Amino acid sequence: MTMTTLKQRSLLGLKELDQEEIRSILDRAAYWEAQQEKVKPVLPGKFVANMFFENSTRTRFSFEVAEKRLGAEVLNFSAAVSSVQKGESIYDTVRTLESMGIDAGVIRLKPIGVLAELATKIRIPLINAGDGNNEHPTQALLDLYTMRKQFGELRGLNVSIIGDVQHSRVARSNLWALRKFGANVSFCAPEGMTAAELDAPHISIDEALKADVIMMLRVQLERHENGLIKSAEEYRQQYGLTVERAKRIAPHAIIMHPAPINRGVEIDDELVESPQSRIFPQMQNGVPIRMAVIERALS
Amino acid sequence: MTMTTLKQRSLLGLKELDQEEIRSILDRAAYWEAQQEKVKPVLPGKFVANMFFENSTRTRFSFEVAEKRLGAEVLNFSAAVSSVQKGESIYDTVRTLESMGIDAGVIRLKPIGVLAELATKIRIPLINAGDGNNEHPTQALLDLYTMRKQFGELRGLNVSIIGDVQHSRVARSNLWALRKFGANVSFCAPEGMTAAELDAPHISIDEALKADVIMMLRVQLERHENGLIKSAEEYRQQYGLTVERAKRIAPHAIIMHPAPINRGVEIDDELVESPQSRIFPQMQNGVPIRMAVIERALS
Amino acid sequence: MTMTTLKQRSLLGLKELDQEEIRSILDRAAYWEAQQEKVKPVLPGKFVANMFFENSTRTRFSFEVAEKRLGAEVLNFSAAVSSVQKGESIYDTVRTLESMGIDAGVIRLKPIGVLAELATKIRIPLINAGDGNNEHPTQALLDLYTMRKQFGELRGLNVSIIGDVQHSRVARSNLWALRKFGANVSFCAPEGMTAAELDAPHISIDEALKADVIMMLRVQLERHENGLIKSAEEYRQQYGLTVERAKRIAPHAIIMHPAPINRGVEIDDELVESPQSRIFPQMQNGVPIRMAVIERALS
Repeated sequence: MTMTTLKQRSLLGLKELDQEEIRSILDRAAYWEAQQEKVKPVLPGKFVANMFFENSTRTRFSFEVAEKRLGAEVLNFSAAVSSVQKGESIYDTVRTLESMGIDAGVIRLKPIGVLAELATKIRIPLINAGDGNNEHPTQALLDLYTMRKQFGELRGLNVSIIGDVQHSRVARSNLWALRKFGANVSFCAPEGMTAAELDAPHISIDEALKADVIMMLRVQLERHENGLIKSAEEYRQQYGLTVERAKRIAPHAIIMHPAPINRGVEIDDELVESPQSRIFPQMQNGVPIRMAVIERALS
Repeated sequence: MTMTTLKQRSLLGLKELDQEEIRSILDRAAYWEAQQEKVKPVLPGKFVANMFFENSTRTRFSFEVAEKRLGAEVLNFSAAVSSVQKGESIYDTVRTLESMGIDAGVIRLKPIGVLAELATKIRIPLINAGDGNNEHPTQALLDLYTMRKQFGELRGLNVSIIGDVQHSRVARSNLWALRKFGANVSFCAPEGMTAAELDAPHISIDEALKADVIMMLRVQLERHENGLIKSAEEYRQQYGLTVERAKRIAPHAIIMHPAPINRGVEIDDELVESPQSRIFPQMQNGVPIRMAVIERALS
Repeated sequence: MTMTTLKQRSLLGLKELDQEEIRSILDRAAYWEAQQEKVKPVLPGKFVANMFFENSTRTRFSFEVAEKRLGAEVLNFSAAVSSVQKGESIYDTVRTLESMGIDAGVIRLKPIGVLAELATKIRIPLINAGDGNNEHPTQALLDLYTMRKQFGELRGLNVSIIGDVQHSRVARSNLWALRKFGANVSFCAPEGMTAAELDAPHISIDEALKADVIMMLRVQLERHENGLIKSAEEYRQQYGLTVERAKRIAPHAIIMHPAPINRGVEIDDELVESPQSRIFPQMQNGVPIRMAVIERALS
């Protein structure tokens, strides 16, 4: 495989992809969603390794369902049970799996910049399942897919992303991708959680609620011990999507969240499965999106 | 699927099942046990998730073998490697997997009452693989299956369940199920490990040894730090099935244990694989029982 | 299955195997390596359990790829997520899996002597994936395979094994196997890491570098807190394969390492993927070797 085609088959982030490429993944996901049969073995004899150097039940499951629906052979590991603990480097692990004949790797990791470097050395397609606070492309793809399903198209859509933007790879991947389609992305974040370097408007929570899409981010207050916001309740009062605030969003607007959810912190319990929420449909959409991404990597 | 049929396909406990339904599961297990071929793919394209919020190698393996023998696609997670650690609720995890297209869930968890509540909200069949000290229905089913195989029928059978009855879901599931078939269940437990609310006779160890089935329970002394029994040896002396006591059981009687075993505490080492023991046959019987239960959930 | 054939199908170590048997495994691995198709289901309906009482991402993955390429059903557990934590004995776990209908077990464990005892009690073939500091037969088989591929034959080959020989099951399995083929094995180890009982020549690092095969072992200094060598850098200076030392090895010689690697300790970073290194090819060769071993166990 030449480096060019390898690069075209990997999915490291959405920043580098053009609109046409993203659209073709969304379209292929729609194809997979429309299939009646759950398993269609288009990838017989292909081995995919889900390499989670950072744990995530939900993301790993979503990939695994996608891979098995395509008939691939699946191998899993998470760092908690791996020899990575013994100080083995991520590179050596990935290179080892490549040596063993894995055809593609889904990889999630914390350290920033490692994935980009890996991709220059490894000769099988790699799919980013979340790397540090850089990108989480399949999450943003399923988000775009969910929005497109709701609104028909993305051009002109107003999307508010609310919460800890600074640490959010979801915010970044959505920003890069949505802009390519002409959507307007605004951030709303407490002091200390903004991302000035991203060159996107930062607006107040009241402004943010006027959007077509209200995307809440998971907040981890333990990361901000010296921040101005001291408690979950204080966060909720200032930036949470409370039942009160939800009454002010437009009737056509939808609520999204990448999950896992802190119920009662960034979003009130009652809203998680409310009629305007698309939170569980997002997870449902994740499977056909990942089928499209895995298929693209391997065919 | 209507709620009625969903309820009929889930297996939350044996208390609610009638004799006929239990019998049909036992009969179907006998069918599966008699099959020559190990894998018979009657469930192609069906996805089963084994969701273990409480670890158990043996139970998870038994379900996994059963699922794979039926040709289902299997996904596993245990809490130790899941984002449940990050405070994500059990409900959100199960609901997430349902969204991803799982067809049935096998679930094991500690908190009491959570499974019953889950079952009212989740729309795929759920199979209880042990919930708190409430029920462990597949264990009791395999126990009944083992007894029926041995004695032909359950009516009139005297079953002694010996040990920490208070914390035992195995004791409860066996009690409910055996009584439906007209068996006589007695408990034998140290002070502080009894279960008065269960309205079953509590008898002495000497009485207990006269039964047709001597079922020993795993004891976890660390749960009873303020109890009267201070050491494993003291427990063994008073309630353990020692080699001495085993000499007094009837020649036709059998010894059972749900495992894992504390050798030398509730049962002496020499007895685990003695001619009267059915401990490993119980584990063998678990596979066809779980095949019957999974098949019932999905077909 | 009679005990004789069971013994012939298990793989506990290479010490007991004769040259002919080892050669037939290497030849069969060559057959598997030459196959075009990745999956060839010669073992349909066979269940293999990978039971890792000691964690190892790389070895478990290698076995799992091998098993799936043969079309077997695979079950995994690692001690970190198993009830072994609850004090359950290794025997009870393995015996339980056997009861559930597993056809073969791949097992890795720490306590010395346990595997040999297990093999006398368990009636399915067991494959040693590393036991204590005793043997690691599939590692040595892939090492021999790698050497044979390089040099055509093993007779007369000079092999230096350098590092913590005392704790190394890799060193032992290689020693037993290589000698059967007439290769000359020498050890090079710091004081306190030698293995006098093995009756193999212990030579200096300068001598060791003259061999045809330079096999570096992973060193774990934390095991030797009272040893003479106090730091990783000191170890590197005295026993590491540094860039300097590598210049002195013969042009036809190859560098091997069982991995995982401590880069910059027993081997310099720059050498891991140098032209003379066979480290990643070793991992590649592990898959056909394990296919041959699993097939031998089950057919």
